[in-house]
Amino acid sequence: MGTKANFQVRLAARPEGAPTREHWEMSSTDIVWPSDGEVLVETAFISIDPAMRGWLRDAKSYLPPVAIGDVMRAGGVGTIISSKHPDLKEGDQVVGHIGVQSHAVVQGGALRKVSDKVAPLSTYLGVLGMPGMTAYFGVTDVGALQVGDTVLVSAAAGAVGSIAGQVARNRGAGRVVGIAGSDDKCRHVVENLGFDSAINYKTESVGERIKDHCPAGIDVYFDNVGGDILDDALSCLRQGARVVLCGAISQYNNLENVRGPRNYLSLLVNRARMQGFIVSDYSDQYQSAVGELAGWLAERKLRYRETIVRGLEKFPETFQRLFSGEKIGKLLIQV
Amino acid sequence: MGTKANFQVRLAARPEGAPTREHWEMSSTDIVWPSDGEVLVETAFISIDPAMRGWLRDAKSYLPPVAIGDVMRAGGVGTIISSKHPDLKEGDQVVGHIGVQSHAVVQGGALRKVSDKVAPLSTYLGVLGMPGMTAYFGVTDVGALQVGDTVLVSAAAGAVGSIAGQVARNRGAGRVVGIAGSDDKCRHVVENLGFDSAINYKTESVGERIKDHCPAGIDVYFDNVGGDILDDALSCLRQGARVVLCGAISQYNNLENVRGPRNYLSLLVNRARMQGFIVSDYSDQYQSAVGELAGWLAERKLRYRETIVRGLEKFPETFQRLFSGEKIGKLLIQV
Repeated sequence: MGTKANFQVRLAARPEGAPTREHWEMSSTDIVWPSDGEVLVETAFISIDPAMRGWLRDAKSYLPPVAIGDVMRAGGVGTIISSKHPDLKEGDQVVGHIGVQSHAVVQGGALRKVSDKVAPLSTYLGVLGMPGMTAYFGVTDVGALQVGDTVLVSAAAGAVGSIAGQVARNRGAGRVVGIAGSDDKCRHVVENLGFDSAINYKTESVGERIKDHCPAGIDVYFDNVGGDILDDALSCLRQGARVVLCGAISQYNNLENVRGPRNYLSLLVNRARMQGFIVSDYSDQYQSAVGELAGWLAERKLRYRETIVRGLEKFPETFQRLFSGEKIGKLLIQV
Repeated sequence: MGTKANFQVRLAARPEGAPTREHWEMSSTDIVWPSDGEVLVETAFISIDPAMRGWLRDAKSYLPPVAIGDVMRAGGVGTIISSKHPDLKEGDQVVGHIGVQSHAVVQGGALRKVSDKVAPLSTYLGVLGMPGMTAYFGVTDVGALQVGDTVLVSAAAGAVGSIAGQVARNRGAGRVVGIAGSDDKCRHVVENLGFDSAINYKTESVGERIKDHCPAGIDVYFDNVGGDILDDALSCLRQGARVVLCGAISQYNNLENVRGPRNYLSLLVNRARMQGFIVSDYSDQYQSAVGELAGWLAERKLRYRETIVRGLEKFPETFQRLFSGEKIGKLLIQV
């Protein structure tokens, strides 16, 4: 592999609104070899996540922004082809922040070993990875799901929402309702994922349909989208409801002028709460969560879909699909 | 007292924005005598509360709206002058929903006995009443105050805010900062109530001053006002912060078009929560809270102010003072 080049996607300019082709710079460079404590990973898949939009903002957050000229940060899974870390060896499969590049030199301690003998490599970026962990702890801990609860999930056909609804059902929710952006997605959510019903926000009146589907009100709203849909959900909360703030994809391209939830006072009259979280806060509990999710996968009580694009050079248009919604389930690039 | 008349303030029309004189009707009627289980109370003080604005809305809430033509609902304290309830007798002093009237026939079971030998009657509508309970449980339970926390309180010179800040300090807050609407109020909050500092929102840039006064960020924000100040506070949250939604006085006269908090995504990146509550949910714990507050009063570790207006006929303009801010501490009408 000595003659291979490292294909990289770097941030060329900081996007104000939606990131387009001009914000990225692609190039091939020589592969760099690892120093002590580092490993060289050959990327198999990279994960395309809504959180990546936040990393492009020049603002204080839970991670520093990606600098202009840097390789774009991304979760990825791959195989070690050279190691200077005592616990990792050539051939080991690992997941971690690899970046949008075909070959990455990474601190060995920042990677987690995985195996395609246990589950397909791509699932470590999806149902058994960050999206799965986010759904799991969002529903069980932040959402404090109780048996019998009515649960509403937005972006229900997405990587996180699709798992969140199934975790809720498997943990005893009384009713699970999804919101998605096409009839195909709504059908998928009900027929394949086992949600009780789904609302197409592009063709239906979300506020009225929530009342139809959740006649006693919502106990847990798992929000991936923000905007009008968050307001519609807030207006249907039950006493003591929990709003899980997982994301706000509708607002990510316009964070300087976010649409605040006008119905937030519903939290007051309904003794309800709205709470954010960062999945990495739960890292010491990942192992038990992965165990429970893998068990459900084996029993076919948890299903997932992937939208896989081939070739890192497709990164700019693939990233845009997060915002246009033209994908189903987990969005990945296969290298 | 047989010849006395009952002076009453009734809702004449449902206000759209700020309630004015025209929304109220005043009249004197004959006193009605209690039936079995009821008592007749001669009102001493009635409480003027922000929550009363909510009771005027024709919308589902934790209490039904006041109907057109009904006596305006209000907390009050007074003396029983006739009783047909086995546990209450003439001369007993009681607190409860008495309404804006000089004489009220009330179910005895809905009243709580108090005594001006323990504390002045008016305090049962303030520091030892709903505002005190609201402040106490808002800080300790909803705000989950921890020793060393930085606490920010809006409407800090008001009935609830003034107690909230002192509860926080007495329970070990590291720093307590108030926001109020005049230099006099700010001085009162710092010099008399012992807050560490105060911000005059009418003359200072609240967002910048919060950063000055809370350099490490806010752990607990006790919100009585909503609007821009809520957004300023949200932008300064510390990791794991708790926003206690107690009220939103800036929005109460325009609830059809509430200004949603644009910075709500700060909850997400800071793993923070925003939570509403209704004080009556804590009624089984009132007694121990009153005990702790009364203890602090005796030790002079808790201070309060009252703005007392004389005469029920002053109700319309007194109610307006809640929104204009022309009062300090607990606003009461003495009959």
